[in-house]
Amino acid sequence: MTKNTKVNAAILIVGNEILSGRTQDTNTSTIALWLNTIGVKVNEVRVIPDIEDTIIDTVNYLRKTSDYVFTTGGIGPTHDDITAHSISKAFNIEYEIHKEAFKILEAYYKPGEFNEGRQKMVWMPRNADLILNPTSGAPGFKVENVFCLPGVPSILKSMLGGLKNRIVGGKPILSHTISLRTVESEIAKSLANVQDNNKDLEIGSYPFFQAGKLGVSIVLRSEDQSKINKCSKEILDFTHKKKIEVVDR
Amino acid sequence: MTKNTKVNAAILIVGNEILSGRTQDTNTSTIALWLNTIGVKVNEVRVIPDIEDTIIDTVNYLRKTSDYVFTTGGIGPTHDDITAHSISKAFNIEYEIHKEAFKILEAYYKPGEFNEGRQKMVWMPRNADLILNPTSGAPGFKVENVFCLPGVPSILKSMLGGLKNRIVGGKPILSHTISLRTVESEIAKSLANVQDNNKDLEIGSYPFFQAGKLGVSIVLRSEDQSKINKCSKEILDFTHKKKIEVVDR
Repeated sequence: MTKNTKVNAAILIVGNEILSGRTQDTNTSTIALWLNTIGVKVNEVRVIPDIEDTIIDTVNYLRKTSDYVFTTGGIGPTHDDITAHSISKAFNIEYEIHKEAFKILEAYYKPGEFNEGRQKMVWMPRNADLILNPTSGAPGFKVENVFCLPGVPSILKSMLGGLKNRIVGGKPILSHTISLRTVESEIAKSLANVQDNNKDLEIGSYPFFQAGKLGVSIVLRSEDQSKINKCSKEILDFTHKKKIEVVDR
Repeated sequence: MTKNTKVNAAILIVGNEILSGRTQDTNTSTIALWLNTIGVKVNEVRVIPDIEDTIIDTVNYLRKTSDYVFTTGGIGPTHDDITAHSISKAFNIEYEIHKEAFKILEAYYKPGEFNEGRQKMVWMPRNADLILNPTSGAPGFKVENVFCLPGVPSILKSMLGGLKNRIVGGKPILSHTISLRTVESEIAKSLANVQDNNKDLEIGSYPFFQAGKLGVSIVLRSEDQSKINKCSKEILDFTHKKKIEVVDR
């Protein structure tokens, strides 16, 4: 049903706080929406605990099965921040003070404030490429196709812009949503027919509940605008015949 | 650092809409918080696309590595709902009309409304155990240790209560949060010492920004209240010495 695009990515969320349910992940959506705009499709997300062996094994798997891997979390100053060390082990690269990162944080903090805790954040795999952090100083880093970002959503978000030129994507992934005042079962058969006629386009159907009324959002995704237009027309044709109202959402 | 509890679970989110970033997953947090209360710890979450082979392979992997697997999404009436069929294939069980589910939906809908689209929702792996749906009728189902739930958060939530007696958990996982007016780097060393003294308790450190001020929440998790109390005291001891304010959050 879904044709994979040429360039894909995996997101690896390192964080006991997501697995425990205490914190709701929002980084997946942030990264995925941004990647869509540069033609990279997320094909898998994994959330794993702060356990070294698990991080190593998962990174080593995903970096082979995906064009890019984005990790979030575990690069701060506390004992539970073990991503940088684990990535070093995964790549079998020395874990050491990164001179450029050291200079950045030395300049970022006031004299005397660049203490032992903060200095932990400049320990990285040797020769890692830095990912600059316009919000709070401490950089992320990249080793080969693995990009390591922090877990704090606002900081992560501010670091994505600087990555654009370091990722080679395909065509941007376009999407179009048609929202209908109906229920899924009413349109299931017609929609399946449209999917059969448009095999290389992704059609998703998502029920919603808004202002006391049920509806369905149909989401079309493709790199090809003309395919979206054709499919969209077929959907509007059957909804018109069935006298189903199209609604704003 | 983290000791696994005896009973664990994996969550498998089936949904292109999560991978595309269009929809933010909230089901992980709902399921994980609920599982904690019955002594089950989530050790992995995966988000995968609506692709049959991927669903089959992932379910077959996770059902062997985790005590329980919870899938969300893909059990509605439209063409992109392929979870039930994929689970049948994963277990090599006939995919067929489930008589009990048929009766439930036949009674749920008004005469004439139980149409072809809705009837798709009673196709399941043969002899699957139903998971009742108090919100919208269509049941989820369980095969061996795999529980298949819908993707719509409010419906999923309403179905969890009915599962309690079908899951054998360990001791409930307790947590205690201490929020401090400080930054992580100030407490990193002391906190690492506390973790060293309390190896079988999970200590997480999470920066926050609230009402214009930075802070850190320290989260202690264990099945043993006395261990949490001991660790909590050690943390309050060092914060007191450092004159760090404890704040409500």
